[in-house]
Amino acid sequence: MNYEDLMKKFGIAPIDAKLSERIRKDAGDLHFMLRRGIFFAHRDLNWLLDEYEKGNKFYVYTGIAPSGGMTIAHLLPFIMAQWLQERFGAEVLIEIPDEEKFLSGKDPRLTLDRTKELAYADALNIAALGFRPEKTKMFLTTEYAGALYKQAVRVSKHIHFSIIKDAFGWENDANIGKIFYTSMQAVPAFLKSVQQGKNVPCLIPLGVDQDVHFRVARNAIDKLGYYKPAIMHSSFLPSLKGGAKMSSSDPDNTIYLDDSPQVVTKKVNRAITGQQSSAQLQKELGGDPSKCAVCQYNRYIFEPDDSKLNDILNGERKGTLLAGEHKKDLAMKINRFLEQHARRKEKIDLESFMLRD
Amino acid sequence: MNYEDLMKKFGIAPIDAKLSERIRKDAGDLHFMLRRGIFFAHRDLNWLLDEYEKGNKFYVYTGIAPSGGMTIAHLLPFIMAQWLQERFGAEVLIEIPDEEKFLSGKDPRLTLDRTKELAYADALNIAALGFRPEKTKMFLTTEYAGALYKQAVRVSKHIHFSIIKDAFGWENDANIGKIFYTSMQAVPAFLKSVQQGKNVPCLIPLGVDQDVHFRVARNAIDKLGYYKPAIMHSSFLPSLKGGAKMSSSDPDNTIYLDDSPQVVTKKVNRAITGQQSSAQLQKELGGDPSKCAVCQYNRYIFEPDDSKLNDILNGERKGTLLAGEHKKDLAMKINRFLEQHARRKEKIDLESFMLRD
Repeated sequence: MNYEDLMKKFGIAPIDAKLSERIRKDAGDLHFMLRRGIFFAHRDLNWLLDEYEKGNKFYVYTGIAPSGGMTIAHLLPFIMAQWLQERFGAEVLIEIPDEEKFLSGKDPRLTLDRTKELAYADALNIAALGFRPEKTKMFLTTEYAGALYKQAVRVSKHIHFSIIKDAFGWENDANIGKIFYTSMQAVPAFLKSVQQGKNVPCLIPLGVDQDVHFRVARNAIDKLGYYKPAIMHSSFLPSLKGGAKMSSSDPDNTIYLDDSPQVVTKKVNRAITGQQSSAQLQKELGGDPSKCAVCQYNRYIFEPDDSKLNDILNGERKGTLLAGEHKKDLAMKINRFLEQHARRKEKIDLESFMLRD
Repeated sequence: MNYEDLMKKFGIAPIDAKLSERIRKDAGDLHFMLRRGIFFAHRDLNWLLDEYEKGNKFYVYTGIAPSGGMTIAHLLPFIMAQWLQERFGAEVLIEIPDEEKFLSGKDPRLTLDRTKELAYADALNIAALGFRPEKTKMFLTTEYAGALYKQAVRVSKHIHFSIIKDAFGWENDANIGKIFYTSMQAVPAFLKSVQQGKNVPCLIPLGVDQDVHFRVARNAIDKLGYYKPAIMHSSFLPSLKGGAKMSSSDPDNTIYLDDSPQVVTKKVNRAITGQQSSAQLQKELGGDPSKCAVCQYNRYIFEPDDSKLNDILNGERKGTLLAGEHKKDLAMKINRFLEQHARRKEKIDLESFMLRD
């Protein structure tokens, strides 16, 4: 995954040192995912902070399309959203489009009944990340369509099929539901402006692959007279086997939030590292952290402390940290996180988060 | 307008003498619009009556897309729906898609605020035709999208853009809202089946130009496991100036339900007749009722009594009925209808008809 090329192709700007410093100043802190360039690019973030510094608060919008169990990789935008809520006092709106994967039709098991079930499981997993119920609302698109459809219609009038066709690479055999869907995904980016009768800035943290929806929708939102949403783009948590993106379609190399400790340990033990082929060689030559899924899991999520992370990366580099120890440490961290997360889920009153027509 | 060609092109069957007789038997009567071939074609009406005769009652679905004031021509499907309600004890569901003409975008004045206003005016006009509130429900699509969208999604998955493109003659510059819209129009044709958890037959009386939506949607509805709706097609009330279709885009040759008596009289006085160029010639040669808008208005709506209609048509044919008298009689009938209709509107409790999320 060449993120430089992606930025050029999508026309998005890097989150550079200057912008990071500005975020740190406004937030009083800089999330490790920003310090480490995991959220690496943006649209209009300087404008958003201009508004914020003028006292014009933004809200945060993000979401997930239910497609199977939720994985560690799915957490990135939500962890960032929760941090933005704490640091900027932002309200958070979360769309769970239970029709999207049904309409994309790649997996025939994904009926609307099944995606609804998955959507509620996702919602609970998200809520348990520490969002404040009084400032966080979530909805399934099919359960909130009464509020969304009319606004989606307004968006859709400004998006021609030719734009969708180019953006998503579809042909005329695309079904008319998935063609329309991007309008539904656009609505929460200006819904608060509609509801409050005045323009409210919106910030969307998302995986960079989702930028396409907003490349299409931002122009339409602008034509409707609303602020175009600002966006923060995250890179992809690598696969445990070393691919660029951990994918829920490759369950063996993906950690699910409901994986048991045994399964986590087994998956991590099979993960690729950047180490040499033997402990002896590793001690002599050292390894490459950038090729090591175990290092990357620490860097992306499981080691928030920079100095501890450096110890890990240096240990890998210098050959002082051996694979067994390295993996054991990560498996323990993941299992601790999942255990705590499961416990937090038990205390969530999900209904207090949900919006319905 | 060659209705024979239309039937071939659309693959729809004529309502022939045998089928008419069957309707008369089941209904205990035959509406004059059926006796006169104004509703001239159908899909699956024999199947619908099979079900009815087995005790499996159908409901009626029809609608109108708000685009301007409601005209006499718009009344045809509703008059039929009301008759079906009386004669078959049918529940009636009326969709008022306030997004359709907004999305088609031909008239920039048709904002969603404006179409909503028009939609409520249409709803009141429809309710005043004599529908039973306890058996009749109406809704604006944007106000009932919570119920409709999820089902529209299910329909949309079975309709590819190529089908829409061919059916409506659109290109890739069609906006994605109007591409999706036909799914929203399809839903009420099986919504009662969804709500009741069992298949309920549905009959749709409509203007033959609207058949295209259901040519597309009936296959999708079938794939979802619901009964395909039966359809009854009406021909077009001719324009007062003699065109094939009275159009609300030609207001001078169209009677609106809110036209004043003076305006009605003026419009009718300017209407084309099938008569000769002078009273003298008309008395000698007679006229042609098929070319006479005044005769056709009587035939389509304003003279339900067949023997009185025959007197009018024969008077025209034989030259005994002169243009002035002929027009005066029609203007009087229209004005009487409009006056009664306005009075009925005052007594309507519209809220008792409306469905909202």
